[in-house]
Amino acid sequence: MKASIITIGDEILIGQIVDTNSSWIAQQLNLAGIWVDQMLSVGDDRQAITEALQNGLETSELLIFTGGLGPTKDDITVHTFAAFFDSPLVFNQPAFDHLTRFFERLGRSPGEAHRQQCFLPEKATLLPNKMGTAPGMWFDYDGKVVISLPGVPYEMKHLMEKEVLPRLQEKFDVQAVEHRTILTAGEGESRIAERIEAFENQLPDFVKLAYLPNLGQVRLRLTAKGSDTAYLRQVIQHKTEELVNLIPDLVFGYDKETLEEVLGKQLKDRQLTLASAESCTGGLIGHTLTSVPGSSAYYNGGMVVYSNDMKVRHLNVSEETLARYGAVSEETVKEMVSGALKACQSDVVIAVSGIAGPGGGSPEKPVGTIWVAVGNAREIETRKLQLGKDRMLNIRYTATFALNMTRQFVSKHYPYPLC
Amino acid sequence: MKASIITIGDEILIGQIVDTNSSWIAQQLNLAGIWVDQMLSVGDDRQAITEALQNGLETSELLIFTGGLGPTKDDITVHTFAAFFDSPLVFNQPAFDHLTRFFERLGRSPGEAHRQQCFLPEKATLLPNKMGTAPGMWFDYDGKVVISLPGVPYEMKHLMEKEVLPRLQEKFDVQAVEHRTILTAGEGESRIAERIEAFENQLPDFVKLAYLPNLGQVRLRLTAKGSDTAYLRQVIQHKTEELVNLIPDLVFGYDKETLEEVLGKQLKDRQLTLASAESCTGGLIGHTLTSVPGSSAYYNGGMVVYSNDMKVRHLNVSEETLARYGAVSEETVKEMVSGALKACQSDVVIAVSGIAGPGGGSPEKPVGTIWVAVGNAREIETRKLQLGKDRMLNIRYTATFALNMTRQFVSKHYPYPLC
Repeated sequence: MKASIITIGDEILIGQIVDTNSSWIAQQLNLAGIWVDQMLSVGDDRQAITEALQNGLETSELLIFTGGLGPTKDDITVHTFAAFFDSPLVFNQPAFDHLTRFFERLGRSPGEAHRQQCFLPEKATLLPNKMGTAPGMWFDYDGKVVISLPGVPYEMKHLMEKEVLPRLQEKFDVQAVEHRTILTAGEGESRIAERIEAFENQLPDFVKLAYLPNLGQVRLRLTAKGSDTAYLRQVIQHKTEELVNLIPDLVFGYDKETLEEVLGKQLKDRQLTLASAESCTGGLIGHTLTSVPGSSAYYNGGMVVYSNDMKVRHLNVSEETLARYGAVSEETVKEMVSGALKACQSDVVIAVSGIAGPGGGSPEKPVGTIWVAVGNAREIETRKLQLGKDRMLNIRYTATFALNMTRQFVSKHYPYPLC
Repeated sequence: MKASIITIGDEILIGQIVDTNSSWIAQQLNLAGIWVDQMLSVGDDRQAITEALQNGLETSELLIFTGGLGPTKDDITVHTFAAFFDSPLVFNQPAFDHLTRFFERLGRSPGEAHRQQCFLPEKATLLPNKMGTAPGMWFDYDGKVVISLPGVPYEMKHLMEKEVLPRLQEKFDVQAVEHRTILTAGEGESRIAERIEAFENQLPDFVKLAYLPNLGQVRLRLTAKGSDTAYLRQVIQHKTEELVNLIPDLVFGYDKETLEEVLGKQLKDRQLTLASAESCTGGLIGHTLTSVPGSSAYYNGGMVVYSNDMKVRHLNVSEETLARYGAVSEETVKEMVSGALKACQSDVVIAVSGIAGPGGGSPEKPVGTIWVAVGNAREIETRKLQLGKDRMLNIRYTATFALNMTRQFVSKHYPYPLC
């Protein structure tokens, strides 16, 4: 079964926006055993959309459109679909009911422009959008399926997961696919490849291993395709265990887990509290920790000590240490840990100080020099990173590294009761 | 003049890589007055590449391919081009000379796989690649142009800038395009549409307006096409002024600026310092502010006061206020501002407290209830938000809202000298 993904929007064609929707959709379809044959981006233009429909239906059984929906006047997708499917626009009451509930939650009511969005082609099956105002649409056409989704990524993802994928699995008889993603942090792609080379070479043909690296983390995805789901599941389970046993120090979780969730669970299980003392990461560690629902159970909060004055005043870092070793030094991050343990009354503290760049480097401490410390009342561990020149990459890599170092610290110093 | 951009590579179709090349090429072409009609991604497949060539040449005068070139065996692009243009592969001595020089700079010499890369279709004009091993190619075909570039971004960019764009400008007499993006925050797409409806209806045909919404921000893009660049520039300038005058309260910048950059510049120009006191945003405001290089000039840092204890201990929020009004209340965020002004020795403070969800709501304060305060030593302004149930959206929306509220506060209370 072949699919085409088509994004609509002049903003993509002028290069103002990078289309990340297509890539995400392709991943999801692939995992569901559907092969993406092409991706296409066209403008907000009736003729271009019509041609994309015509050409796409010649080569693919499934077309997924994103973008080109919305309450404003540049929206022409709905009209183009209505004409193509020869299906007049009619007021869709369920769509309006969803819209009304969406606005109720915001304490508002829909305006006329929003009401207009509820006129959908008669032949469309509504895919209700709980995250926004533009409804998704599903068209059955000659045994094929055409889907239209809004272009706002979180709305599109919500509709894909809740509405599109379950319906596709029901409608099409796709090959069975089982997969498991093993999440690692602490080593790069090539070092992992070395450690698991023999395992990889001995994988049977119907099992594939993909490396998905991303800033300090590498996800290893095992995929098995075939006809017998139960057997595939068993193989994947077995191969996962084999793989994890080769790199137990690097594996922190599976599938959709995140490092911050795993760390949070670890802390919660041990009834530990955590605080952060951030300089160059500027709050990203706190933000990442608190992106997890319920994180207030273990995260007390922290300090963003961007200025030296903040470091001295709130974390009791000594002026002498700052003068002698500098703000980016092992001594400073150690004092930051000690200070934050007291100031935030927490069991464990993460502290970070570094030169994120692009400016601020020196011959002894070039841009990308970063110190990370994790500690409790008894001991403090430190690590020095020497990263590149890109500010945002440095900040994001450091936050991930620090969270993983904290996970390892907790595992080591607070072994969990085995009962 | 119309162009198509085509990327070749299975890694794109399975969603392993996001295609950022197309977006970059589109920007460059646009700036050169060449309109990109479509972007297409196809697999490493002879038939798919051939169809892309055929279809592309029907609609566009210019096709730019990237990817599908390289020393490994899955390279089929060169063979497909040779067949399509009915042009046998011949050894290209200048290509080999470039390759030899490339390897010399690395202190190495080309291998046999690299030598094979120097067999190019006879009709191809070589575009020498100084950054890598795969040569670029230029084909003149029936008054149209087909270009093939390597997929490695820095090699592709180098070839575009040094070889492709100068040749295109020489060869084609291109239509002029001018655009301007007006950045707004504080209102949604449809509310803006209502306020500028008359303006939008009176736009001449050659000027288009697009709405690009994204979590609390809406970008408005004006595009004008024609033959006379100076005239188009004048029209865009004039229309931009008209538009900004209709919604001056919402506009914070232009084109590639970000809210945090604009706020940072505002603070720097006025020699003001800022601190943050974050509860439900957990550090995202600090992270966003410090994503701007040089932000240490105006951002002192802040507190992530996730627990009530942290609010009391570090921001001097009174136990009584917390007991009587709760942590999510106007009274609490006001005290957070007052506390942080002192604790962080800053001129202006942003404070946020809310229920990000999904848990923690009550009938009086449902999930999504968020208080934001911005203040200085003389006055504190507050706003209550009533958002939805999605934790990450609430956090991100609130951070954007708070930054925009700070921008408005600074504009209002620190009018910039007009000299």
